[in-house]
Amino acid sequence: MTNEYVEAAIAEAIAGVERGHGGPFGAVVVRDGVIIGRGHNQVVTWLDPTAHAEVLAIRLACRETGRFDLHGCELYTTCEPCPMCYAAAWWARISTIHYGCTRGDAEQFGFDDSAIYADLEGRVPKQIRMVASAREACLEPMRLWRERPDRVPY
Amino acid sequence: MTNEYVEAAIAEAIAGVERGHGGPFGAVVVRDGVIIGRGHNQVVTWLDPTAHAEVLAIRLACRETGRFDLHGCELYTTCEPCPMCYAAAWWARISTIHYGCTRGDAEQFGFDDSAIYADLEGRVPKQIRMVASAREACLEPMRLWRERPDRVPY
Repeated sequence: MTNEYVEAAIAEAIAGVERGHGGPFGAVVVRDGVIIGRGHNQVVTWLDPTAHAEVLAIRLACRETGRFDLHGCELYTTCEPCPMCYAAAWWARISTIHYGCTRGDAEQFGFDDSAIYADLEGRVPKQIRMVASAREACLEPMRLWRERPDRVPY
Repeated sequence: MTNEYVEAAIAEAIAGVERGHGGPFGAVVVRDGVIIGRGHNQVVTWLDPTAHAEVLAIRLACRETGRFDLHGCELYTTCEPCPMCYAAAWWARISTIHYGCTRGDAEQFGFDDSAIYADLEGRVPKQIRMVASAREACLEPMRLWRERPDRVPY
């Protein structure tokens, strides 16, 4: 069953496909029943692997509200968010995500969402080599930040 | 032990702290020994919860190379990437991530990285309510995309 928010997300996705902007995904952010941010995947035209629909919708909603915190807002997306977008929604304090297709559908169409989830869930060997070093030197900016009275936690 | 890339990432982090731009994190992307992208957290000044150091460094590196694929590049970051940034590195096809502080350090300084990992690993109840609906309608843009001969997989 669709509603106006799902339909707006689908319209974004289709607009992106028709213009060749990137993957077939769209998203909107809703606050108090009003769409305050929308976006579709722009990976290809922007040459930006982070330009997923959800990230762009969240960014626009933040600009619209003048806040980096979208507490109480809901995200509607045509496909289950990849871990990047799920974590972006977390940082934005999104309360609810409504999604249509699944990570399995995305996989069928050639996208890596399922594989990234499997990696993060520890079900497969890590795809990216992780090398830890220089922890002590890297703690210095953290300590400088903590000492600043004007720091803004998020 | 630090090297010039770690030092560049730390310098980014400190510059961000001193200017009050956001969290105390910096990152650089390296290709063939050359830094081709750098960034520090800008969440606060940009009012953008996705403006993490790694995301910005990846975006700049893509702009520099004119590609959305950074295959063979390495990411140096002052702190273990949060899941958003780890997945961003995945989408960018980064091969190796070098990090200083850990998710546990970030937690000590009040950041959610560990909590987001625990959520994605399924070790705690999901923090964001996930609602599945309208799958069939949302498959339509996927099918339109697949039919386009000019589609660009990523």
